[in-house]
Amino acid sequence: MGRVSDRRRILRVNPQGRRFRADAIVGEEPLEIQLNGTPYTVTMRTPGDDVDLALGLLHAEGVITAAADTVTAKHCTDSDLNVLDVTLRFAAPPRRRDFAVSSACGACGSGSMAELWEQLNPQLRHDIAADPVTVPVELLTGLPDALRSAQRVFDRTGGLHGAALFTDSGRRECVREDVGRHNAVDKVVGWALRQDRLPLRGAILAVSGRVGAEIVQKAAMAGIPVIAAVSAPTTLAVDLAAKWGMTLAGFVRDGGANVYTGFQRIPGEEDS
Amino acid sequence: MGRVSDRRRILRVNPQGRRFRADAIVGEEPLEIQLNGTPYTVTMRTPGDDVDLALGLLHAEGVITAAADTVTAKHCTDSDLNVLDVTLRFAAPPRRRDFAVSSACGACGSGSMAELWEQLNPQLRHDIAADPVTVPVELLTGLPDALRSAQRVFDRTGGLHGAALFTDSGRRECVREDVGRHNAVDKVVGWALRQDRLPLRGAILAVSGRVGAEIVQKAAMAGIPVIAAVSAPTTLAVDLAAKWGMTLAGFVRDGGANVYTGFQRIPGEEDS
Repeated sequence: MGRVSDRRRILRVNPQGRRFRADAIVGEEPLEIQLNGTPYTVTMRTPGDDVDLALGLLHAEGVITAAADTVTAKHCTDSDLNVLDVTLRFAAPPRRRDFAVSSACGACGSGSMAELWEQLNPQLRHDIAADPVTVPVELLTGLPDALRSAQRVFDRTGGLHGAALFTDSGRRECVREDVGRHNAVDKVVGWALRQDRLPLRGAILAVSGRVGAEIVQKAAMAGIPVIAAVSAPTTLAVDLAAKWGMTLAGFVRDGGANVYTGFQRIPGEEDS
Repeated sequence: MGRVSDRRRILRVNPQGRRFRADAIVGEEPLEIQLNGTPYTVTMRTPGDDVDLALGLLHAEGVITAAADTVTAKHCTDSDLNVLDVTLRFAAPPRRRDFAVSSACGACGSGSMAELWEQLNPQLRHDIAADPVTVPVELLTGLPDALRSAQRVFDRTGGLHGAALFTDSGRRECVREDVGRHNAVDKVVGWALRQDRLPLRGAILAVSGRVGAEIVQKAAMAGIPVIAAVSAPTTLAVDLAAKWGMTLAGFVRDGGANVYTGFQRIPGEEDS
């Protein structure tokens, strides 16, 4: 238990023939996060940086806002690396909010739906729209290569999402990988929280894949003003980024990018 | 609400310059699934094929096993396409199982973890290992193109996962798309359930992305003996496929493939 990747015997077939060989496969195991000794949630993840993952997830869900909210965060035993307990300085919330619990479902103005929107659309503690950072096009379009070059496990397995924090001068500060794209972002935010770096003013979050609403929500909670994704965003991701004054770029590849919101942070003159 | 994709004004930047243009973005909206009028779960999804999604999800979670278990499945109102009610022929389970609810956490042999394993590792009703289907290499390696060519929304947005069912002669029977890879598989299985096609003996499930444990679990519940993925599997996906006697192929691209389990279904002679 608790391996980032594992080697297995596979059958490789291609036009040149077929042969058995060993291959590295990315690890996927459940992690139970406990708060003050009581189960809070279980998430599938790639083992590694579990403390960052737990702290980032708890931050995204509004349970903690700073490292000072926690006393310890550690695996329960050395023998089972799939249970991690976070001791808070306050009483734990009863358990992770479950969107389906509510019984307040009147005429399709469902209570559970309202809860989901509340979680996706929290009151932010940081004014992201006021962040004056700008990102030159050359810096923006170079981020995916800078992320990719630091993805060590991806190199072995081809199977991981990556997330990285960059400064506005393009310095890479933290890279995390996970089989789940949300987990990679949680790990990055959890790292920043441990460094007392929140809110992440002036920071750029680069992600290796697509951008859905949850990733924008996690970044917004951390005060990140710019997201650069290698692949496509969704409508809800664009809507949330626009609402919060974030800059959201997608399809950042091959020297180009699509900017969906916060155009003012990408300086330059439009073609006439 | 309820749009598969939407057009937005974006700023396109690349070495040739920068200009504003309209671009199609893939839809992401929550869907609340109700059972007999009571909320069961909420899932983020791309609108479209909502009934297939709901039935497939309920099948994967063991709530229903056949179309005959349902009386109706329809959106609650014509004006809000984000709430769908499924009327069952029996009393609804209280709500979706939440792995974090359990308080039975003794010495890290956590109750919630045990529940997760139980869900990922259910008693199957079909003997997949006994399925005699074989898949020639040429057929296997041609599946991604056959899937991709049917992904209509991906063509517009570049932002969707796809899943498709093929017969062992390579005939494509059903294609579904979603921003969530699990949803695309649920939609395909939901389609098959509506057609009374379960268990899907001899079928091949092609998916556009990576394969985690949940996708293998959903396919296994539907009796699917072969999964062909364009990208990487995880260790847990490989372990579950091996346990159930499924054939799991990944990196099916560029005329080649890695076969992780169920080698006997890919006929041919190994290189000496």
